[in-house]
Amino acid sequence: MAVQTLDDIHELAQQLRVDSIRCSTKAGSGHPTSSMSAADVMAVLLTRHLRCDWQRPDDPANDHLIFSKGHASPLLYSMFKAVGVISDEELMTGYRQFGSRLEGHPTPVLPWVDVATGSLGQGLPDGVGVALAGRYLDELPYHVWVLCGDSEMAEGSMWEAFDKAAYYRLNNLTAIVDINRLGQRGPTELGWDLDTYAKRIEAFGCHAIPIDGHDLGEIDKALGHAAEADRPTVILARTRKGRGFDEVEDREGWHGRPLPADMAERAIIELGGQREITVIGLQPEAGTPRTRPNGEVSLPRYELGAKVATRLAFGQALAALGARGDVVALDGEVGNSTHAEEFLAKYPERYFEMFIAEQQMVAAAVGLQVRGYVPFAATFAAFLSRAYDFIRMSAISAANIRLSGSHAGVEIGADGPSQMALEDIAMMRAVHGSTVLYPSDATSAAYLVQEMAGRSGVVYIRTTRGAYPVLYPPDETFPVGGAKVVRSSPGDQVTLIGAGVTLHNCLAAADELAGDGISARVVDLYSLKPIDTKTLVEAASATGNRLVVAEDHYPQGGIGGAVLEALSESGHHVRLAHLAVQGLPGSGTPAELMEAAGISAGQIARAARDLLSG
Amino acid sequence: MAVQTLDDIHELAQQLRVDSIRCSTKAGSGHPTSSMSAADVMAVLLTRHLRCDWQRPDDPANDHLIFSKGHASPLLYSMFKAVGVISDEELMTGYRQFGSRLEGHPTPVLPWVDVATGSLGQGLPDGVGVALAGRYLDELPYHVWVLCGDSEMAEGSMWEAFDKAAYYRLNNLTAIVDINRLGQRGPTELGWDLDTYAKRIEAFGCHAIPIDGHDLGEIDKALGHAAEADRPTVILARTRKGRGFDEVEDREGWHGRPLPADMAERAIIELGGQREITVIGLQPEAGTPRTRPNGEVSLPRYELGAKVATRLAFGQALAALGARGDVVALDGEVGNSTHAEEFLAKYPERYFEMFIAEQQMVAAAVGLQVRGYVPFAATFAAFLSRAYDFIRMSAISAANIRLSGSHAGVEIGADGPSQMALEDIAMMRAVHGSTVLYPSDATSAAYLVQEMAGRSGVVYIRTTRGAYPVLYPPDETFPVGGAKVVRSSPGDQVTLIGAGVTLHNCLAAADELAGDGISARVVDLYSLKPIDTKTLVEAASATGNRLVVAEDHYPQGGIGGAVLEALSESGHHVRLAHLAVQGLPGSGTPAELMEAAGISAGQIARAARDLLSG
Repeated sequence: MAVQTLDDIHELAQQLRVDSIRCSTKAGSGHPTSSMSAADVMAVLLTRHLRCDWQRPDDPANDHLIFSKGHASPLLYSMFKAVGVISDEELMTGYRQFGSRLEGHPTPVLPWVDVATGSLGQGLPDGVGVALAGRYLDELPYHVWVLCGDSEMAEGSMWEAFDKAAYYRLNNLTAIVDINRLGQRGPTELGWDLDTYAKRIEAFGCHAIPIDGHDLGEIDKALGHAAEADRPTVILARTRKGRGFDEVEDREGWHGRPLPADMAERAIIELGGQREITVIGLQPEAGTPRTRPNGEVSLPRYELGAKVATRLAFGQALAALGARGDVVALDGEVGNSTHAEEFLAKYPERYFEMFIAEQQMVAAAVGLQVRGYVPFAATFAAFLSRAYDFIRMSAISAANIRLSGSHAGVEIGADGPSQMALEDIAMMRAVHGSTVLYPSDATSAAYLVQEMAGRSGVVYIRTTRGAYPVLYPPDETFPVGGAKVVRSSPGDQVTLIGAGVTLHNCLAAADELAGDGISARVVDLYSLKPIDTKTLVEAASATGNRLVVAEDHYPQGGIGGAVLEALSESGHHVRLAHLAVQGLPGSGTPAELMEAAGISAGQIARAARDLLSG
Repeated sequence: MAVQTLDDIHELAQQLRVDSIRCSTKAGSGHPTSSMSAADVMAVLLTRHLRCDWQRPDDPANDHLIFSKGHASPLLYSMFKAVGVISDEELMTGYRQFGSRLEGHPTPVLPWVDVATGSLGQGLPDGVGVALAGRYLDELPYHVWVLCGDSEMAEGSMWEAFDKAAYYRLNNLTAIVDINRLGQRGPTELGWDLDTYAKRIEAFGCHAIPIDGHDLGEIDKALGHAAEADRPTVILARTRKGRGFDEVEDREGWHGRPLPADMAERAIIELGGQREITVIGLQPEAGTPRTRPNGEVSLPRYELGAKVATRLAFGQALAALGARGDVVALDGEVGNSTHAEEFLAKYPERYFEMFIAEQQMVAAAVGLQVRGYVPFAATFAAFLSRAYDFIRMSAISAANIRLSGSHAGVEIGADGPSQMALEDIAMMRAVHGSTVLYPSDATSAAYLVQEMAGRSGVVYIRTTRGAYPVLYPPDETFPVGGAKVVRSSPGDQVTLIGAGVTLHNCLAAADELAGDGISARVVDLYSLKPIDTKTLVEAASATGNRLVVAEDHYPQGGIGGAVLEALSESGHHVRLAHLAVQGLPGSGTPAELMEAAGISAGQIARAARDLLSG
């Protein structure tokens, strides 16, 4: 049947409720009541406002639909059934089952899903990124619709998103908040206090439209306003959880619980029975994204021995990479420290200042890559920990994002421990499918920045505050997954392994050892994940299996951990002296702090001597 | 001289500016201009409103002063000089120097500093925790004053803090926002738009007072209002960065830069020269915190073989621990999942619902421990990643907080990867001074919860969703840093190491291997940090150095990494088969997902056989 009148839409909404109940009862888990509250809003959206060619999910002109309240997946999948892209059979046999694409919370294994959600407060920030792409890069009129829960309004990241949406005047973004007043374990903070929600939203610069979320006419009008607005719209839909089935409607204790079979049966009857309505919906206006020409990337070249900070090389290489029209940059208001501002100077139209909102910064990167852009987001490495949940979810989204963390380790000196990343390697290595890079000089840093653009997944580069000598000539290559033997001779007795600043300490230690007649091999482990096990094993084998690893990071899960895990997998046994940051650092000079941490050149040399005498 | 009149206070403010310049110029780094903007507000606060016995920083009746904008440390330390607790010599020779307590950003190595700041957007959330303690636990009239920067208003965590401050009616909390309109690299998002700030603050339920932050009379009046308010107050102080020295005042390019010596000289002249004013300030009203009697802690007892989820044991043990009057609990609106609600049922007055705001939850725990309470904060382990920057900073604060992460790993089943913690062990192990616990049964979980209360630093317990058999009798002990050999015989040929759910898989694998005539030792590695190297080495030595480690976590930095790091340090060589979660999981049953991840009993047994045949 054609869904046209509000009565038709009511029938569709009831179908969405019934199907949400059916699939979750069948699966024995899921969130039917959280789906039922939003069914009316979604039925109107699907029929009259969302412009999408469901058969061509890659059409760049399509609107985007993001379920920030990812637990309402039964509703989302029921919508997919209603538009005919998944079958009732798939819904009923697949939902939450092993190997199925209909996961408990939506992920982009489904072509109509942009981003994984399920950790609350992320879908809207992701949507800000998609909307940024639409307005400023693609220059296409697609609209981004985000269904939010009311519980997630307690997440600060939502307010980062409203703030940035307004700052960037994203009138192509509409958030619909399903205010069903009940969270997981009871009432939400604000209940049905739509006035307070509206005040907050308006104060954050978005247009708030409070409505009865079960009045189809009101919904229709609000969605129509949203599509025509001059700023981001937030529809505050007062709803009732479990709407349509009296036994659970607006009652506590029904979050995340499927209805038992007998209740499901009664509910389906109360909702008017099963239906098989198919919605056609609106097609997008045909359009193609604005493309920017690709110029030739000409990486910066550094003179051997010149002192250049890797963070500066990052910025300069990123600016060079800007010749590619798809590369975009974001920064957390520290572009003059991370040197992302080098890109800003050349390509201001592709640079998004996210101010000090690291969660939104990472989410915007995720949203931008949804539309095929190649985002690089930069801040102090320490502050990427602020966005760890977003980085973790980004991996589940199979998003291709590039993160640059500057000011790593105690090397930063006087600013003290709050600014020192000492956990970031452990954090980033543990992310599924991630790449972790840590160059020690400007040449390798610049090369790796270019490599990052071509890699998938979460790709992280750690850079150093201070300027250290350029070690490699301009045409040297640094494949991801490789390592460099920067010093070796046939008689090497011990291998010193460093990355970033500690490579320089290893080189100084090798000099010191050479003075004592001890020949040391030095390995630059610039790629920590993937890691060059072959080079590690060869170096170990050649040097009596004596290894010293020095890292400007806490001892757990960092470079030492990466080396041990790699060698263990290869079955190679070594004697490893592991120098990592001991104790809680304070302020001081880089040299003082590295000495106190136990990772100075002298301490590396001593550890090597101990291995040789032990 | 006695500081009494506003003219006197002006002199004090000028002294604070001069001293901020002097110490940062001497150190060659620091943020004098960010200090100068807030000097007037702090001079009035110090003289007329803050009640503190500076000689007795541990006096429970003292007001609290938190610099959320930690980079204004020159101002804070200049205030400490003005009240006579640090000398001018210490300020001038210590600031930002190695070994000094006057670090680049404040840390609690100073007795007048409650929490480390420097990662923006954290001091205010921490202050919410201190204010919660004052109002609901200590029941003392102390006031919490937090100096915030305007740049950090972009952090979502600030809005979590305003929201929770209002929700808990914390009229003992005042935030002062130093709106100097300039961030690190240029203008802030809102500049001097005090109206918008005020609207946001009021919408979030706090009382906004916009003032000229250089008008001492206005400041005095606003602070007076704040001390008498019926809800949290936010003073929006319009200020000029670098105030008082025309060459830098309100100019870009001076963030985080000390004045060169010649400029410093001119600035000090312009500011009226060096002064040595000492402030007496107000004393706190004498008072002692309300104490709650300590009852006897009687841990829950579980029957051997009964199936009990460790998350339930956590909740029940926490409720038992509530007999201690100083134990408090917090949860992120998932108390019915983490089972923190067991504590709520018994001690509602010591339970703080933080809704879905994990950053504020951890910060509140940090604030509560400032006042000597023993906080336990719980949410899904996956969502603790949301608060990683707060956890990292908590370690720098030397805060004693206890975190419970439930629903770890693929074991959770149908909800899918967004809800699965698979990076948390790596993340938590890397935190300085942390403890990481992962019990496999209810008895050990309950015991370890009690151990957590007595430990310092960040103490993390990982719990499992599903119910598994109780393995240990009620009176068994589980010292932190220990491990249990749960199965052994003299002829053991291989050691299987698990923790949490994988210990059960190891036991099943040992059964399977026994059927093949292979005798396997099984180790319960319930304490991952510190780790029981001795037991690991003994088990390895006794079983031909064949180890299988199985973990419901990604391969990097988790249990395998912990074992390898421990063995490497001990110099003991093993052959280790490391089974960890391979690939990105989806939905499914726990058994299906553990099989797909490669950590099932069958896969553990196969790995053991491979080690024996290899």
